[in-house]
Amino acid sequence: MLDPAGEATRAAAARLGVDGVRRLRIGKAIELEVEAADAATARSQIELLSDRLLANPVIEDWTLEMIEASGEQSA
Amino acid sequence: MLDPAGEATRAAAARLGVDGVRRLRIGKAIELEVEAADAATARSQIELLSDRLLANPVIEDWTLEMIEASGEQSA
Repeated sequence: MLDPAGEATRAAAARLGVDGVRRLRIGKAIELEVEAADAATARSQIELLSDRLLANPVIEDWTLEMIEASGEQSA
Repeated sequence: MLDPAGEATRAAAARLGVDGVRRLRIGKAIELEVEAADAATARSQIELLSDRLLANPVIEDWTLEMIEASGEQSA
């Protein structure tokens, strides 16, 4: 996908003397902590949010990385 | 750090019926491909760019994750 901000930043890096940058892409990173009955439920909730709220699917791709917390509300 | 966009998005998630979201933070993710003599050189170049160009250290934290490409320009 086009990334004009990334391209401009790559040019600015060269002006700072760092000319080894071959590629530079700027995107969003969103960290969520979700409480759900199980991992599958959490995943489907996050997928819903990603499509409807967090990303604009017309111009943005997204990927999801899950990190499971252990136990259920222990302490 | 304060993240008003993250807070607003968390409230919007609840209005979409997803009410298990305990925390939501929005940040930037920047992917760079850097050509350098070795990993230490690449790291110091990226650290320079992060401090001077990519992040605003007054209001932003950053972390760096390195993924090393194998070989040197083989094919």
